[in-house]
Amino acid sequence: MTPEQQAEIDALRAQSFVTRRATVPALEEILYDVIPVLDHGFVRVIDYMGDDAAVVQAARVSYGKGTKKVREDAGLIAYLMRHRHSTPFEMCEIKFHVKLPIFVARQWIRHRTANVNEYSARYSLLDREFYIPKPEHLAAQSASNRQGRGDVLPPDQAEKVMKLLREDAERNYDHYLEMLGTGDEVAEEDRGLAASAETVAVTGLARELARMNLSLNFYTQWYWKTDLHNFMHFLSLRADPHAQYEIRVYAEAMADVLRRWVPATYDAFSNYRQGGVLLSAKALAVVKSMIDGKPMSREDSGLSVREWKEVMATLGREG
Amino acid sequence: MTPEQQAEIDALRAQSFVTRRATVPALEEILYDVIPVLDHGFVRVIDYMGDDAAVVQAARVSYGKGTKKVREDAGLIAYLMRHRHSTPFEMCEIKFHVKLPIFVARQWIRHRTANVNEYSARYSLLDREFYIPKPEHLAAQSASNRQGRGDVLPPDQAEKVMKLLREDAERNYDHYLEMLGTGDEVAEEDRGLAASAETVAVTGLARELARMNLSLNFYTQWYWKTDLHNFMHFLSLRADPHAQYEIRVYAEAMADVLRRWVPATYDAFSNYRQGGVLLSAKALAVVKSMIDGKPMSREDSGLSVREWKEVMATLGREG
Amino acid sequence: MTPEQQAEIDALRAQSFVTRRATVPALEEILYDVIPVLDHGFVRVIDYMGDDAAVVQAARVSYGKGTKKVREDAGLIAYLMRHRHSTPFEMCEIKFHVKLPIFVARQWIRHRTANVNEYSARYSLLDREFYIPKPEHLAAQSASNRQGRGDVLPPDQAEKVMKLLREDAERNYDHYLEMLGTGDEVAEEDRGLAASAETVAVTGLARELARMNLSLNFYTQWYWKTDLHNFMHFLSLRADPHAQYEIRVYAEAMADVLRRWVPATYDAFSNYRQGGVLLSAKALAVVKSMIDGKPMSREDSGLSVREWKEVMATLGREG
Amino acid sequence: MTPEQQAEIDALRAQSFVTRRATVPALEEILYDVIPVLDHGFVRVIDYMGDDAAVVQAARVSYGKGTKKVREDAGLIAYLMRHRHSTPFEMCEIKFHVKLPIFVARQWIRHRTANVNEYSARYSLLDREFYIPKPEHLAAQSASNRQGRGDVLPPDQAEKVMKLLREDAERNYDHYLEMLGTGDEVAEEDRGLAASAETVAVTGLARELARMNLSLNFYTQWYWKTDLHNFMHFLSLRADPHAQYEIRVYAEAMADVLRRWVPATYDAFSNYRQGGVLLSAKALAVVKSMIDGKPMSREDSGLSVREWKEVMATLGREG
Repeated sequence: MTPEQQAEIDALRAQSFVTRRATVPALEEILYDVIPVLDHGFVRVIDYMGDDAAVVQAARVSYGKGTKKVREDAGLIAYLMRHRHSTPFEMCEIKFHVKLPIFVARQWIRHRTANVNEYSARYSLLDREFYIPKPEHLAAQSASNRQGRGDVLPPDQAEKVMKLLREDAERNYDHYLEMLGTGDEVAEEDRGLAASAETVAVTGLARELARMNLSLNFYTQWYWKTDLHNFMHFLSLRADPHAQYEIRVYAEAMADVLRRWVPATYDAFSNYRQGGVLLSAKALAVVKSMIDGKPMSREDSGLSVREWKEVMATLGREG
Repeated sequence: MTPEQQAEIDALRAQSFVTRRATVPALEEILYDVIPVLDHGFVRVIDYMGDDAAVVQAARVSYGKGTKKVREDAGLIAYLMRHRHSTPFEMCEIKFHVKLPIFVARQWIRHRTANVNEYSARYSLLDREFYIPKPEHLAAQSASNRQGRGDVLPPDQAEKVMKLLREDAERNYDHYLEMLGTGDEVAEEDRGLAASAETVAVTGLARELARMNLSLNFYTQWYWKTDLHNFMHFLSLRADPHAQYEIRVYAEAMADVLRRWVPATYDAFSNYRQGGVLLSAKALAVVKSMIDGKPMSREDSGLSVREWKEVMATLGREG
Repeated sequence: MTPEQQAEIDALRAQSFVTRRATVPALEEILYDVIPVLDHGFVRVIDYMGDDAAVVQAARVSYGKGTKKVREDAGLIAYLMRHRHSTPFEMCEIKFHVKLPIFVARQWIRHRTANVNEYSARYSLLDREFYIPKPEHLAAQSASNRQGRGDVLPPDQAEKVMKLLREDAERNYDHYLEMLGTGDEVAEEDRGLAASAETVAVTGLARELARMNLSLNFYTQWYWKTDLHNFMHFLSLRADPHAQYEIRVYAEAMADVLRRWVPATYDAFSNYRQGGVLLSAKALAVVKSMIDGKPMSREDSGLSVREWKEVMATLGREG
Repeated sequence: MTPEQQAEIDALRAQSFVTRRATVPALEEILYDVIPVLDHGFVRVIDYMGDDAAVVQAARVSYGKGTKKVREDAGLIAYLMRHRHSTPFEMCEIKFHVKLPIFVARQWIRHRTANVNEYSARYSLLDREFYIPKPEHLAAQSASNRQGRGDVLPPDQAEKVMKLLREDAERNYDHYLEMLGTGDEVAEEDRGLAASAETVAVTGLARELARMNLSLNFYTQWYWKTDLHNFMHFLSLRADPHAQYEIRVYAEAMADVLRRWVPATYDAFSNYRQGGVLLSAKALAVVKSMIDGKPMSREDSGLSVREWKEVMATLGREG
């Protein structure tokens, strides 16, 4: 964060307008502020539309607030969530400014029902900022899960990995600058290190080409806007233990924003989505047999070994 | 509008909150207010997110307002519009409450990139409100355009049509009530006429069935929310002379909302979308030949008779 | 179905082409054929893309079929379904021609992730075809569920309702024709009854206006195309007992198409979606307590009365 | 392309099924085949649904083919395109397998109305394949266009850039393998070079982490499926001279697929989209003044210098 950027943020935070719109003081409190994530990333709430009452108002297609009592509203919100009536939740909207490593951005962008404006590396220079995992997040490939992590690497190996990542990223960035040349324009915009004198041979490769030399841990940034329903869908997939750590930390920071913004919806989300489980017809039969005190065997259940384990874990049983 | 509904609206308009969010006084002024459309319909702005500066801010992925001078902002907005960079316009959002005839709703809903909550006739009773066109809008089938209107009907025929429409709608609604029965629940909710005593034979057909007896000119209502880009797309199609009059008047009322909300965007929209024209490659060749003073014939141009007429009309020429 | 329409369908069914594309004989068998639904409606499969193997192929981003053994493929499909990996299912596509009452079309169209072309009543005349429920489907408003049906109406009341619906629809259609006039064009296109001589006063109201006199049980038709993932989402909501009967019968007919088209996906859909249940965190705690033989009371569970009933029904217990 | 992959493709091409579906011989001819793009990339058509006649069939919501004469169909297709009736074009679908550099994939994925399954570098190893531009495509940053290319680099500088790109990519890939370790699993799957013996210190960093060391010119691959309308939208933006060369070559290869698939639609697309121009209201006034032989000055026109130049270029005039 440069002093100029901080000043811009401070200016926004010093703003104060009068509005008739639904307003959420707990969210206003952190509006525009930087919520740090990873080593150089962040999440900032830029704007929002609606609150818990707006969900109720839309569900009732009401002329006024649509609100009865806070408790009844919470009950209706829980009902809507339980029965997958998603459209009232689409009536609220939130907009973020996010700074994130490119490989995280590539997972994130798969959520198509959102609006995105990304910083353009065709148009502007990228900063010398890349993600280096902390040793405690450098894990070995999981033996059991082909797309997951296992044990943390031993310290010397972690050291080695961090060194390789850092050196390659630095070198790639040096060469990125070198290819771009060191004309006035670059000097003016570049907020990272200057390319070393001896390598200045290229006088200005197009930015849209030079950027391809950067690695996937470099940071990009974007404005990302979505509605409350799709925001929760994003969180349910990305704040999940199966999500890669590096995107999960963003989702967790944003789940906290959800809690501030729409507390009743957040409670229902926690109960029905994050803490909820989906049982297949076969798994349900197993559960029923257990309640009856005549537990079915896995073979009789028709469950695969994998699903059996998942179901038993859900029920807090040994497989 | 019942007194209760008006009181609810007044209560919302009396609200006043302090916010750090982008706020547009010209839009706040009409927030929640009823903008009448057709004989019983309306449009109300319920909420909004962002302003002209938010478009610029997103296009620049900036930390602060992203605004330089108002004039530069307008220039950037025009540039974005001209070059079909639509994503920055997706960063603003607007929410309406709309009351509209069902046949209009059926056209409107075809715009899929919007969020909708419609009043449920499975759950609640519909009011005795239906659209009857004014005589000056009762036009004959167009002879030249299979999906358009021609001349206005002669007064006696217009009279006849209005009578048929009104009588059928009244009778259909009477029977709707009759099928629903006249139990306490209906009496309480029904704000229209009661079914006549002699017809009370049915004691309560399900609402989800009874509604099928209503005709397509009955009014429904919904909350409708969309982003600025898709809002303009809706307006460009529905505030267009080719659109059916009954949806066009809604679009025109909403175009006025656009003007209040984001004046720079509105100007660019007027110039590039509403007033702009699309010329095909062949039509462009015709235009060039005219500029050169050696106008091409229709036969040489390869244009169909219909497109030729359209192009000449665009250029303000006789075909 | 007119003889001309049947001849058109027969001509399509007589077609035979050679293709390298994934082909499903069980679906080819019924291609283009009319599957009757309700009194005048139908569903026809017009085209499809992909099969079970195409799901696997996309999940593996493979150069060839991606298929190993049928059994392994089914396992992968079940895994994808269980873990909500929806994108491979989006790689198959299906296209239907559907004839349906307008009030059903209005529910259906709320599924936005589909492509639709509807028959235009601005452009063409609608047929004299409207839905009249059979007596066994004429149910009273449910006392417990504000948007559902309760007991079937007594025969005399059912008779009364059917009479009202039929008479109003007939009259509305007569007046629709009358307003359109009885010029040559109408005579040619009209496949229903002619307006009676004495009412011929109007010489041709625009079709886009006259249609508003038709009631919501009139039939419309459309081409509807969606991908396999969204098709299943549609089925999970509309082939559900909570869905209105009149749309459910369409969904059920289409679920049978799903079974023919992608049998492995259908099995997983049955097990995980249609037969599966979602338990909230609180409901899961109740289930665990029951398995442990120390069942929690509703009060301790924190469940609402309604959710408690739903959970007990799911577990096949008395509440 | 490995021999195994080629064999898989050959097996698919040797398939032959009988179908009643709309079938396009010119597209069947190249089905599954590799269309090379850039140094290691490709486009392959995997499946398709519909043809020109299917557009017409949907527009008419017909029971049969909907086709009259080929010439009339082409006329209707042109009409639909000219008047932006996009839904009939949504009734055809196409599916591709694409291999492309990651920085190209990042532009491409911004088209949200498509279905995508990407090769997972969390799950599998990426190949040692990266894009190195040819000297004739290594251009300097444009002086006039902040996001474009200017002149080609002099040979020695081009040489230097290619050397830097290649060395960095090779080194990054070596380190990627090194971090992953050289266990049996990797050896089996790895189709690139093995990590050198001396660097084997890490015994197996998780793939989801190691991949971040790869640069944006490495190749990824995906299945990409979209409908005909959105396919043309993609082509109109990406086969455009303003698009970056590296994505444009993909779009151009795919435009050729469009021509094979739906020739009448392709002609209309060429005339109305690719060759067509959008004139603003102000630009139209300029054109009219030129036709009248009384050309307006730029100052009077109200056009910006930039738009004036664009309009004059469109008209083939000096600015």
